[in-house]
Amino acid sequence: MAERLGDVGERRAIASVLSILGPRGREAAKGDDGAVVRATRAPGAALVVTTDTLTYALHRFPRAPLRLFGYYACAVSISDLAAMGARPRGMLIAVGLPAETPFGDLKDLALGFRRAAERLGFDVWGGDLKEAPSEHITTTALGEAPRGRALRRRGARPGWTVGVTGFVGRAAMGAHLAARHDPVGFEMLYAFEPRVEAGRALAALTRSAVCMDTSDGLSASLGELARASPGVGFEVERERLPVQPGLRKAIGVERAHDATLHWGGDFELLIAAPPRVFARARADLAARGCPLTAIGRTTECGGLALLAGGVRREIAVAGFEHFRSAAGTAP
Amino acid sequence: MAERLGDVGERRAIASVLSILGPRGREAAKGDDGAVVRATRAPGAALVVTTDTLTYALHRFPRAPLRLFGYYACAVSISDLAAMGARPRGMLIAVGLPAETPFGDLKDLALGFRRAAERLGFDVWGGDLKEAPSEHITTTALGEAPRGRALRRRGARPGWTVGVTGFVGRAAMGAHLAARHDPVGFEMLYAFEPRVEAGRALAALTRSAVCMDTSDGLSASLGELARASPGVGFEVERERLPVQPGLRKAIGVERAHDATLHWGGDFELLIAAPPRVFARARADLAARGCPLTAIGRTTECGGLALLAGGVRREIAVAGFEHFRSAAGTAP
Repeated sequence: MAERLGDVGERRAIASVLSILGPRGREAAKGDDGAVVRATRAPGAALVVTTDTLTYALHRFPRAPLRLFGYYACAVSISDLAAMGARPRGMLIAVGLPAETPFGDLKDLALGFRRAAERLGFDVWGGDLKEAPSEHITTTALGEAPRGRALRRRGARPGWTVGVTGFVGRAAMGAHLAARHDPVGFEMLYAFEPRVEAGRALAALTRSAVCMDTSDGLSASLGELARASPGVGFEVERERLPVQPGLRKAIGVERAHDATLHWGGDFELLIAAPPRVFARARADLAARGCPLTAIGRTTECGGLALLAGGVRREIAVAGFEHFRSAAGTAP
Repeated sequence: MAERLGDVGERRAIASVLSILGPRGREAAKGDDGAVVRATRAPGAALVVTTDTLTYALHRFPRAPLRLFGYYACAVSISDLAAMGARPRGMLIAVGLPAETPFGDLKDLALGFRRAAERLGFDVWGGDLKEAPSEHITTTALGEAPRGRALRRRGARPGWTVGVTGFVGRAAMGAHLAARHDPVGFEMLYAFEPRVEAGRALAALTRSAVCMDTSDGLSASLGELARASPGVGFEVERERLPVQPGLRKAIGVERAHDATLHWGGDFELLIAAPPRVFARARADLAARGCPLTAIGRTTECGGLALLAGGVRREIAVAGFEHFRSAAGTAP
């Protein structure tokens, strides 16, 4: 029978995770009560911090490979750094698992942590492993941004261009495929690449931009940007949304409309900037392999509006909200 | 009927937590994807980071007030900073709660976070609130230590004095009282004061000391120090242990012996240093109101030993280990 964490015990389990992390877990492996780290290396860099907690119950598709989910748990926090224009430096990872969890599950998670660390460029500085009634993973990411240049949500002005990186509806497509047991679906849901380079390029380019990631869905993110800049409205055109290829065909035009606006789980950057700055950012990001599509503009009347087929109507903000049974997947 | 988080929703719930945190949650309240912070202020200070995750199921005594438990969730991470000789600066707090959780429970937790922030001297720099099948709180603490002077576990040499701050068995006494519905028991279990001043004083005094907190129990902590300094043994004398007043009477001499050695949940500092350094540290800490009691010495033969009634025997390392049904309370 496969070994369970209850047979293995905390200390051996932690040793195994550290061995899988290898050089990426050097700091955590020192085994002190905390780690002494250099979180910023660039002279004059500012420290950026963020935390995210996930559960299997709400965030993991049944049977999704744990290696991908471990990667995902790290990537969601790195996406927050990306949205701040910060470069990842370190991560602390706290894991709670039931005693009956197969030891192999923890090792698979650790392989995902390592993959994330290598691909996204951070070290694991610490962590915690505890017995828990249900599975949860909390990641805390630390990064650096040039001082005074971190990207923010507040400060948008009317007349700016609004855009989004990559495609909208990737998570919806992933969920559609995963429900049909297509392994590509899990990759699309969990193995996303946070927009670190794009965020850093935007932060280096301008102080006149607002930015956040779209983890809660496009409408919710637009709502947050609108809330952060009182009196400024956001208007997007449905026809300009860079919809995930194949999504309309896969789930139908109506559901695709709903998914691209309201479902969470995409981790693109939502950006607003003065038109000339936006054009430069688009060129800059394109040169880095990251498409940035203009989808609308900011207006002088507050609130959110959608232009579709020549008709303008208000968008109800219905992105995923925890503790509410809203549409979409939990981000 | 009392409002549940499922009625309130994530956004209003977070707004309520931020309002309770007040000025201590200023950074988190900015509402960006991450926070830009100054984690170190002293010139030449090093950043120290640590994370801990707790669950109601394993770490909360039934009916323990959530205000105390919220304080505790922060204090356990601050204790790790204390053991590194670091000064607390900031905290990120991730909370997972079921949708049926009364809104008031979250507010009580937040009151505990605020109390910890005020009493222990940190700001809340970020957080996350998510729906979860079972309750968990993960705290990540950031602090600063003078560069090159953070306290470590490794580097003990034979002939050093071994000591512990405060009393051993406080958590055992707390659990005993809590089981009898004495509210003082909950205070003893959860409202402890991490040894921040003592850790900082020790770090300032010497580079020739090893230190960790006793959260997993005295024997487990001695075992960790022994593991961190291969070839060095730790020998303690039962008669010298500063046993929590009243503990022997409350739970009997035999159980008190067991509890003081093996139960987790105390958050004192376990220190080893050359005798002259130790004597200075004891005077220094005493001047700060923190008793430090010599309980033994390091030896040239590895392993742990207990001297009791003139007899020397090996100590089995039986501190609390997660995923194992060892004695004591979960730290």
